Amino acid sequence: MQHNELIPRMRAGDQRALARAISIIETGGPPARALLAAAYPHAGAAHVVGVTGPPGAGKSTLVTALTQEWRRRGVSVGIVAVDPTSPFTGGAVLGDRIRMQVLGGDPGVFIRSMASRGRLGGLARATADAVVLLDTAGFQVVLIETVGAGQGEIDIARAAHTTLVVEIPGMGDDIQSIKAGMLEIADVFVVNKADRDGADNVLRQLKAMLHLGEHRPGAWEPPVLKAVAMRGEGSAEIVEAAERHRIHLHHSGQSAERARAAAERELSAAVQELALERVRGAPWEALVTRIAARARDPYGAALELLGESKS
Amino acid sequence: MQHNELIPRMRAGDQRALARAISIIETGGPPARALLAAAYPHAGAAHVVGVTGPPGAGKSTLVTALTQEWRRRGVSVGIVAVDPTSPFTGGAVLGDRIRMQVLGGDPGVFIRSMASRGRLGGLARATADAVVLLDTAGFQVVLIETVGAGQGEIDIARAAHTTLVVEIPGMGDDIQSIKAGMLEIADVFVVNKADRDGADNVLRQLKAMLHLGEHRPGAWEPPVLKAVAMRGEGSAEIVEAAERHRIHLHHSGQSAERARAAAERELSAAVQELALERVRGAPWEALVTRIAARARDPYGAALELLGESKS
Repeated sequence: MQHNELIPRMRAGDQRALARAISIIETGGPPARALLAAAYPHAGAAHVVGVTGPPGAGKSTLVTALTQEWRRRGVSVGIVAVDPTSPFTGGAVLGDRIRMQVLGGDPGVFIRSMASRGRLGGLARATADAVVLLDTAGFQVVLIETVGAGQGEIDIARAAHTTLVVEIPGMGDDIQSIKAGMLEIADVFVVNKADRDGADNVLRQLKAMLHLGEHRPGAWEPPVLKAVAMRGEGSAEIVEAAERHRIHLHHSGQSAERARAAAERELSAAVQELALERVRGAPWEALVTRIAARARDPYGAALELLGESKS
Repeated sequence: MQHNELIPRMRAGDQRALARAISIIETGGPPARALLAAAYPHAGAAHVVGVTGPPGAGKSTLVTALTQEWRRRGVSVGIVAVDPTSPFTGGAVLGDRIRMQVLGGDPGVFIRSMASRGRLGGLARATADAVVLLDTAGFQVVLIETVGAGQGEIDIARAAHTTLVVEIPGMGDDIQSIKAGMLEIADVFVVNKADRDGADNVLRQLKAMLHLGEHRPGAWEPPVLKAVAMRGEGSAEIVEAAERHRIHLHHSGQSAERARAAAERELSAAVQELALERVRGAPWEALVTRIAARARDPYGAALELLGESKS
């Protein structure tokens, strides 16, 4: 299959073409850029929904339940499951993914795990590009699942229109310490495993925490919803909240603002990737040797590579 | 205080000058680069030791205990404590840091928390630069404490010569799922809170896990050491293991390899930072608008900014 055939085939519903295209963008380099340049004008229609939360919150199960709910409503769903290649969560995440297998065989669903370490710009970059491809392929909702435990994952969440933050009962006092960062990124809170003891307590704490924040008139108030994802309970309410949030973004003008911020991030990343590729020529190795020997500083060397006159 | 006075003052032991210099590199931009270019030739002597592990493993307490041990041996210690600005751990980390206050008032110790979000290139970049400054200021050991829970923290760990991975009893089955990534980055394992039930079990599991890995002749075998950091127990053995590891790096030629890899990362980061600063001129906003409207793709726009002829 030629690269220039991939986009029309993806758009015609060929999942093998889509899988191939994502592999190309995971690898990066000129083929990835050519593909994204061709895809970009077709993208922009999907509702991108991030699902994040601590390890053990049942995110994969929730993603599965939400996908089933959207499918019942006739909406197609693309899923990007991000493995942060963390030494502390890697294995567990992989185990969870197995639960998503119930979604297999439905042409209205596409699932891809991302774990690329090789790509210049890292996982956040490859994930953002994969979202563009799923959007181009016509998926109406694109779900990004991440383990929310680091700046990288927050960067990934930022690529979403709507971010669901998942909590569970039994985190005890921790709930007090995590509020600041969560308030910034959560559009919808989900208390999963809500059949467990302490669910109402978590619910109450989250609501209290939200009321502490400054409330501007017309601003979105993140709902706090209960779910038992393993049995599909709460999925309808969460899907409806996500859709209300999307409408709110449009009406409030935030859609346009967010699109602009995303465009700026994409352009910055593209400039960095291209600049680095260009200077990896002959003097590169010699400069690295000199820097390692402390005979040169990295910024001085970078100026030399990029051409000092323009600085 | 002028910028060009900072390096000599730092090197003379002026901790205010050092604190000021770190603030400058946290902000980034041309002043940060000028400072690092001046510092770089003076750096390279410190032993950089990373301390990472899951939240709750007692890393700050261990860092405090190890620092006290090194001080007893007459070794000066600079500490960079990285707050990952995570919504899920932020608050807790801050609380731990308070324990380090026992180290205050000793001119042979310098502690700095890093939590900058603003800096281009992020926290890993600012942390690596802060390590260069502590090294320049003459600290013989530089400790980097991170919460090991994401790619960003692994990038930070990579800047260390010696990485200590801290575990605690009571993580249960999780120990099985975390081994792959840990084996890659750990030079020394520490089982902290070893007075708790299950410590011997964790110790045994870690050792078994290490024996599963491929062992090349002459390769470093990560020791697995017990500690009760709160009472200073185990600190001497850990400090000695870290120093043995450093000697191993020298004798095996890995010091030179790692210095080269670090130099390459530094140069890449510097190229990216400078390239981005240069193109943030007039056509930038117009291109962002066109990308947001899907009338342009980010890579095509980046090519235009960098000058297509050179691609």
